[in-house]
Amino acid sequence: MVAQNKGTASQAIGIFDSGIGGLTVLKEIRNQLPSEDIVYLGDTARVPFGTKSPETVLKFTIQNSLFLLEQGVKALVIACNTASAYSLESLQKFFSVPVIGVIEPGASSAVSKTKNRQIGVIGTEGTIRSQAYPRAIAKLDAAVKTKAKACPLLVSLAEEGWLEGEVPEKVLGTYLAEFRGNGIDTLILGCTHYPLFKPVISKVLGSEIQIVDSAVETARQLNETLHDLHLKQTENRRGQTKIFCTDAPERVARVGRYFLGDEIPKVTKVELS
Amino acid sequence: MVAQNKGTASQAIGIFDSGIGGLTVLKEIRNQLPSEDIVYLGDTARVPFGTKSPETVLKFTIQNSLFLLEQGVKALVIACNTASAYSLESLQKFFSVPVIGVIEPGASSAVSKTKNRQIGVIGTEGTIRSQAYPRAIAKLDAAVKTKAKACPLLVSLAEEGWLEGEVPEKVLGTYLAEFRGNGIDTLILGCTHYPLFKPVISKVLGSEIQIVDSAVETARQLNETLHDLHLKQTENRRGQTKIFCTDAPERVARVGRYFLGDEIPKVTKVELS
Repeated sequence: MVAQNKGTASQAIGIFDSGIGGLTVLKEIRNQLPSEDIVYLGDTARVPFGTKSPETVLKFTIQNSLFLLEQGVKALVIACNTASAYSLESLQKFFSVPVIGVIEPGASSAVSKTKNRQIGVIGTEGTIRSQAYPRAIAKLDAAVKTKAKACPLLVSLAEEGWLEGEVPEKVLGTYLAEFRGNGIDTLILGCTHYPLFKPVISKVLGSEIQIVDSAVETARQLNETLHDLHLKQTENRRGQTKIFCTDAPERVARVGRYFLGDEIPKVTKVELS
Repeated sequence: MVAQNKGTASQAIGIFDSGIGGLTVLKEIRNQLPSEDIVYLGDTARVPFGTKSPETVLKFTIQNSLFLLEQGVKALVIACNTASAYSLESLQKFFSVPVIGVIEPGASSAVSKTKNRQIGVIGTEGTIRSQAYPRAIAKLDAAVKTKAKACPLLVSLAEEGWLEGEVPEKVLGTYLAEFRGNGIDTLILGCTHYPLFKPVISKVLGSEIQIVDSAVETARQLNETLHDLHLKQTENRRGQTKIFCTDAPERVARVGRYFLGDEIPKVTKVELS
């Protein structure tokens, strides 16, 4: 669809998300690949993707990818579970740069961690409905049993900054009730907003259930992919991060701090077409 | 902007909203104007509006209005507080049909109800930031004191169908804490999703605080406007309702029932430009 040469090691990594949740993935990529330049795009004019249809989400992700390719990135990271579930295969087909989603890395890590082959997954309505995690897990080990649960309220809760205390404990207690004592030993956080609730989730489920954060695994897979393709930044330097969004840049800067765990660099608003 | 003749009484009423919350307004309009045909558009591909910028919301509402005008409506109702706050004046300027928002009717009802001239307003981030309610109230009675509070979580809570029980009581208890015993005697529900929480809000605030539901007042003002302009349906008939959305029609049908309090007629997906 887009004619593009293979990248070079000095180019930036492109990351896109429906909004600001993907900043948890950006954070992990900066941790693991500190020399890389990064261009991040949050499609805040059309957030959230989790309640939208596959064809609409695919249309949005193509526009997001094209914007990042125009910025000259050498790889694309889909830092949104719903977008990964609905569009990874198409984007890998359309574009010549490597495209990495968050589903397969999370699934792969959970499969390697589970002892009793019973894995739980929580995510948005779209991610859960897509069955992307059970499918990715079954591909890796057909004997693993997966139990999935949509938790739509958690995105707003995270964006509200209500990360601990009575309200998130009550909400997560309700959503996770079916995972208590039902046999799973591993839980995948299948939405980029959810790592913010790790402490509450551990409290609700108890420490014997291991939690898999797709952001950490995605950064690891990106690292390997860039290494294999000889696309890793070779200079020992501190990489630069540029942040773009499609609406309300001041909100991205304000709320994004919860997700990045750091001050947000200047946020620039862009129009997509 | 759009050349259009003044309407006739037999034409439909057009209602648009960012998504499905506006169905609470549709419900009240059907109650008060049962003979009227209604065309409803929910912009579900871009919901919510409450966290987006004024210029983006205005762009969306112009596209929403043009779609309804193409369906041949005689009046436009903006059944979304954020959209009313950011775009009512512009749409009234652009279009020749009467355009009615939800802010002024709610403000006007609250001003007529308050005894001690202290009014509370709850709404989305966008609606509260816009100061549209305090401005509308001050225009009607400069001596009224208005206290406003954004409650961003309530939209997702309503769409999740968690309308009673521990979670909404805890969430509303937190949001409304500042209204307890601070003197207001009237509270405006400044978001079309909020009427679903009336019982919980009454429980949290006590029965001495009156609750104003903009949907009821908006339907009343529409009724008066159509009457004044000789645009009311004159036949004694049962009006038809058509529902359009920009994404995920099956979700609108499923979740919309909470809002309409009735089965949803066939939902048709459309592309806006």
